[in-house]
Amino acid sequence: MKHFFKALTVALVSLLLMFVVMSDAMAQQTLASVKKTRGLNDEDVLAAAKTFMPRGGRDEYFAFVGSGNSGTMIVYGLPSMRIYKYVGVFSPEPWQGYGFDDESTLVIKKGSLDNTLLKYGDIRFPALSETDGKYDGKYLFYSDGANSRIALLGLDDFETKQVLMHPLFINAYPGVAVSQNNEFVFQSSEYPTPWDHREADVATEYETKFKSGITAWKFEDTDDAAGTGHHVGRMIKEESFTIELPPFTLGYFDAGRLAGHGLLVGLASYQNQHFVYVYDYLKVQTLKKQSVNEFEVIPFTDARQAGVFALIPIEQSAMSVKVDPTSKYFITASNTAYVFDFEKVKAALDQQAFSGDVLGVPKLITTDLLYGQVELGNKVVDLAFDFRENMVYSSVYNDKKLVRWNYETLALDETFDLSFKPGHLMTPQGNSVEPHSNYLTVVDKEGLYDNMLNTGPTRPSYNHLIDISSDKMRDIYTMTIPQANMYGSVSVLRTTIKPIIRYPLGTNTRTGEISRFKTVAGQEKIEREGNRVHIFGTLIRSHITPEIVEVEEGDIVTFHLTNLERAEDETHGFTVSTYGVHGSFEPGKTASLTFTADRSGVFPYYCTEFCSALHLEMEGILLVRPKGYVASGEDIGEIELTQEQLAEYKKNYEDKIVVINETQDVINSVVTYLKENDYQKYPYVEALVVDALDQLELAKTSKANYERYAAEGKWKDAFLWAEQYWQYQVKTADVGLRAKKLLSEQISM
Amino acid sequence: MKHFFKALTVALVSLLLMFVVMSDAMAQQTLASVKKTRGLNDEDVLAAAKTFMPRGGRDEYFAFVGSGNSGTMIVYGLPSMRIYKYVGVFSPEPWQGYGFDDESTLVIKKGSLDNTLLKYGDIRFPALSETDGKYDGKYLFYSDGANSRIALLGLDDFETKQVLMHPLFINAYPGVAVSQNNEFVFQSSEYPTPWDHREADVATEYETKFKSGITAWKFEDTDDAAGTGHHVGRMIKEESFTIELPPFTLGYFDAGRLAGHGLLVGLASYQNQHFVYVYDYLKVQTLKKQSVNEFEVIPFTDARQAGVFALIPIEQSAMSVKVDPTSKYFITASNTAYVFDFEKVKAALDQQAFSGDVLGVPKLITTDLLYGQVELGNKVVDLAFDFRENMVYSSVYNDKKLVRWNYETLALDETFDLSFKPGHLMTPQGNSVEPHSNYLTVVDKEGLYDNMLNTGPTRPSYNHLIDISSDKMRDIYTMTIPQANMYGSVSVLRTTIKPIIRYPLGTNTRTGEISRFKTVAGQEKIEREGNRVHIFGTLIRSHITPEIVEVEEGDIVTFHLTNLERAEDETHGFTVSTYGVHGSFEPGKTASLTFTADRSGVFPYYCTEFCSALHLEMEGILLVRPKGYVASGEDIGEIELTQEQLAEYKKNYEDKIVVINETQDVINSVVTYLKENDYQKYPYVEALVVDALDQLELAKTSKANYERYAAEGKWKDAFLWAEQYWQYQVKTADVGLRAKKLLSEQISM
Repeated sequence: MKHFFKALTVALVSLLLMFVVMSDAMAQQTLASVKKTRGLNDEDVLAAAKTFMPRGGRDEYFAFVGSGNSGTMIVYGLPSMRIYKYVGVFSPEPWQGYGFDDESTLVIKKGSLDNTLLKYGDIRFPALSETDGKYDGKYLFYSDGANSRIALLGLDDFETKQVLMHPLFINAYPGVAVSQNNEFVFQSSEYPTPWDHREADVATEYETKFKSGITAWKFEDTDDAAGTGHHVGRMIKEESFTIELPPFTLGYFDAGRLAGHGLLVGLASYQNQHFVYVYDYLKVQTLKKQSVNEFEVIPFTDARQAGVFALIPIEQSAMSVKVDPTSKYFITASNTAYVFDFEKVKAALDQQAFSGDVLGVPKLITTDLLYGQVELGNKVVDLAFDFRENMVYSSVYNDKKLVRWNYETLALDETFDLSFKPGHLMTPQGNSVEPHSNYLTVVDKEGLYDNMLNTGPTRPSYNHLIDISSDKMRDIYTMTIPQANMYGSVSVLRTTIKPIIRYPLGTNTRTGEISRFKTVAGQEKIEREGNRVHIFGTLIRSHITPEIVEVEEGDIVTFHLTNLERAEDETHGFTVSTYGVHGSFEPGKTASLTFTADRSGVFPYYCTEFCSALHLEMEGILLVRPKGYVASGEDIGEIELTQEQLAEYKKNYEDKIVVINETQDVINSVVTYLKENDYQKYPYVEALVVDALDQLELAKTSKANYERYAAEGKWKDAFLWAEQYWQYQVKTADVGLRAKKLLSEQISM
Repeated sequence: MKHFFKALTVALVSLLLMFVVMSDAMAQQTLASVKKTRGLNDEDVLAAAKTFMPRGGRDEYFAFVGSGNSGTMIVYGLPSMRIYKYVGVFSPEPWQGYGFDDESTLVIKKGSLDNTLLKYGDIRFPALSETDGKYDGKYLFYSDGANSRIALLGLDDFETKQVLMHPLFINAYPGVAVSQNNEFVFQSSEYPTPWDHREADVATEYETKFKSGITAWKFEDTDDAAGTGHHVGRMIKEESFTIELPPFTLGYFDAGRLAGHGLLVGLASYQNQHFVYVYDYLKVQTLKKQSVNEFEVIPFTDARQAGVFALIPIEQSAMSVKVDPTSKYFITASNTAYVFDFEKVKAALDQQAFSGDVLGVPKLITTDLLYGQVELGNKVVDLAFDFRENMVYSSVYNDKKLVRWNYETLALDETFDLSFKPGHLMTPQGNSVEPHSNYLTVVDKEGLYDNMLNTGPTRPSYNHLIDISSDKMRDIYTMTIPQANMYGSVSVLRTTIKPIIRYPLGTNTRTGEISRFKTVAGQEKIEREGNRVHIFGTLIRSHITPEIVEVEEGDIVTFHLTNLERAEDETHGFTVSTYGVHGSFEPGKTASLTFTADRSGVFPYYCTEFCSALHLEMEGILLVRPKGYVASGEDIGEIELTQEQLAEYKKNYEDKIVVINETQDVINSVVTYLKENDYQKYPYVEALVVDALDQLELAKTSKANYERYAAEGKWKDAFLWAEQYWQYQVKTADVGLRAKKLLSEQISM
């Protein structure tokens, strides 16, 4: 019996277990059926769970990539791989009015030849700004390969702040590097040309007149005058300089940090000879500069004399050279990877341990500088570091594989076979002194729609997310990147970037200064001088002021508009029908739109960005009168309403007041909760409350207006202002409820 | 003992079960740990599994959406919600050279005023072409709200084919509708204006001179002359017409199908009065037309007389009106939904059962036409149908909810609370006679980063994917849509669209005709006439021919380039440094780039699209000589190599020949396999084989070249041609291996 009971116990336990299994199976049933329906295996489900972003979740990293031929910057998130933004850099971008409003057009024009608006750019490898070799999340830099321009983007508002055209190069390598405290942003030429638009004969004057060069753009960081902490650093052309070089084709380059600070390493080739170059950009600054086309140049003869630039021959062409996070080594690879000892290279350059030259540039002795070599496979494209000590990832193009190997022991660690030929690599924080792990992205440039739709003769770029959190690599997501030829990305921890949500009222966002065209509510006006018309207007839910503008055919018209909103994501847009202008007005921004009113007629203008339920009310009209026009009728006045219409507006008004009172009850209950729970102790909650109160402050005028119009029996105006007041209330209530939710979460923690 | 054995058996079974549970738990462990780390619940995992796209998987649907202010069309896939493409429509798009090459610039210019290049557009609600009310996957239509343009896109190559500017309207509603066999594409004005750039006084002449109107653009479908089945239908301006209307603000509209064919229903308002309009566009065609600005117009007085246009008063403003899939009803909604009986409306219009008028437009009697009403909540934005009989989805903006309800029984079926205020809705195939189910997308225009990164003062649009496959709705994915103000989408079954992968050689892809600038290999040439220079060039891995072009300062230069490739996704790009031109050359395409060479100097040109491992070799130089320049040296000739260099090239050549022989072995084995397994029986496999053989055909010249140069001891040329030959081989091998894989899968099925 004892056995029996024991057995019974076991049986009961087993029954219990069966129940557990069954209930588990039932819970899993839907997942199982989805797996079956969609053809997913366990690995797929795991991959899906690793990239899916739940409600309230946040991507761990911001990533930035150049779009190639679109001339725009792309912002995406890791690990969701969702694209958040395209930002105009080297080409006009209509959505945010870049190259459509006067202020941003000026940014592009300053970076173009002869005051033209250069509309095409080719950008590939960005660099993030650094403090002590760590990403500081403040700025992003880009080089335009097609037109030899360089650009600066602010990461607190994700806008392009500066574009400069190179005064000497015709064509640039489409990548940049920064020194460890952003002292310099480096840019090099790609294909050699005579400088400064001088001409030359390819056959007879190639060696004498064609040149290459590397430019150190001086960068100065600063915050805005308003003291908001908004970063307005700029590259200073007058303090920048270029080293003149013989006609090498220059490629990818990287800057040493820490002990390697002061040296730039890059790829160079001449005919069928391939090199890594090393460039001592600190030492070169002691040399005398000459001015060429108003730009400081170190003549090659002087640079050669000083031994600041030298070549390390390598056997085959390479596509990447990267300095490791400790700057102990730098690595380049074609089929073989070469690990160079940074100390030895510095010493050899200092000692001028040269052996021969190419086009007058001294050669260092490769074998003396090499720490070691590793065979990786057929055609390595790129290298990337993560936080694993001395580990580097390599993409091997023709072998369709990734190889992780140890550059200290020179041993292969892990090989991962891919379904595609891998291109450029990226690890989060990978080009800084503190690379992270977990994720590796790999560009797939020949994606023959493995799991993608066929979109005709030309396809997007693809970017694969590789999970490198464990020893075994896994390809967990294929991202499509539209309107882009994707090359390199950079990625930084989400929390390093501190995006602002509004500007000080009246900000010219391209300069960071308060615009002289700033207009506040009640001070809207139209100024004329001859055929020049300036409209100083405002945008706020749900009015464009002024609502009617009258000009004469041939007038040059500028709308200077200020968005008066303080609420989060409360952007207004503005366009005038058929005149091709467009502005995006984020809260606090002032921008100007200029055009010649060369066609008479009536042209509606309107808010182009959905801003509230009354968005469609945000419209007005531009009357362009034929030259010499005399109005046949009265002055522009109000259209009289019928009694029936008036009664309808009165009813609408009264209905709205009921809703307003209900909404106020919600606001009151939220306010009570917030006060009772000391919301001031929680900074982010407090910020939300300030935002909410801001809304109510703005609402005061609307309330005064609707009460006044109601008293006067002007029911249409009373209704419209009541509607406007309610819009503010709703925004207040929304923000308040978010604050309440956040506060309750904070309290329960 | 019997009991004991029984118990033991039970115990063993239970042990076995425990083992199953444990092994299952171990298998699940990683998913469990991922869930824990990433804060996912079971619902999240299920959602992730429903949208994740496994290797070899395909999205079920193509979806298309207008980008608002970018003037581009966006292509995304359901359910992965990945964006595949941005296509330039109303604004230039650099990536694909739209508005940068001559052919596409002409498309935009034809749709602009006075031959200008209008660069801004505002597009929101697209319509797909139909055959018998079903999507046929051939064309897509768009209206430009800002500038009153209409555009046609081809869906076999995803390119914009035609843009027309409205000859009368200044501003258009940014949506279109098509009749059930694409006889007409409908476009309406939005804000009233005087037509044709005539001016008027707002105060005194609003009712007399301001107008609204609806245009029926005649559409003619046809295939290309080359007989490839490439669709080249066009809108015919001369056969289109507009009905003149008093100054109503017009909104969303939809076309009846089946029994409802011939009627258009839409939204109209005047001051604070709101209506649904009904328009009999078939009957109106019997009326006499007048020509206004060379465009056919039905005068309002005649239309009024014939009773072809009438208003149905509704109480509040609405944002959407949709005809149900059977055309038995049409529905509009604000807080209340109104279901109108289509038959009753048609009969009332035929019988002219009017009661009063607004601005001369007769009013129908709402209550006589109403099938029923349903209270839905505070501010309905949109309506969408799926294949559930008589069911409609409504987004209720202020209540943050979706409501599914039955428009036959007028009963609410299911309410789904959202975390955001919902905007426009879309179901796959939803605006056709055969809507599908499973998915519903909802636009979130005020996304305050619920699970998104903060990207500064202005944010992207968000689009939520709702799983409607079961009775209970689930929000399973939040998609970010960069560079767009998103409104409505349309979506069609993946297999309905038949994308092409190459064009007949020398195609002007905008007209569908063979370009007169088509150039084949060996016939490249430069033609001059005065200061006009035409370059007839070709692009093929890895050469741009010609490689050197010499012109004089001030010359007007056109590069007419033909991509000779036949391989899939083998696009080349082309730009000339600092001249701001760019072309995207898909296989077979011919396009032209024109610019004035107004600066002397040496300007590299290069392929801007990664095309093969030898992509960087695809470059050349444009020499712009100062006026009157006389070459100081010899004719352009070859640079002489040193003996050392020559030896190096010889070695490279010999190494390459070894690789070529190895690659040939791979090709041979694949060919053997394919032949032995009757690949011709499988059409897609056969297509791949043809593609592969195409590659080898192209390779013949390269082989002849490298053998000849090797025989002559010209090792550099021999090496470069051998490299090129190998590129073809690799492509052949790649395509061949894909064919082999596919064939083996087909055989095993």
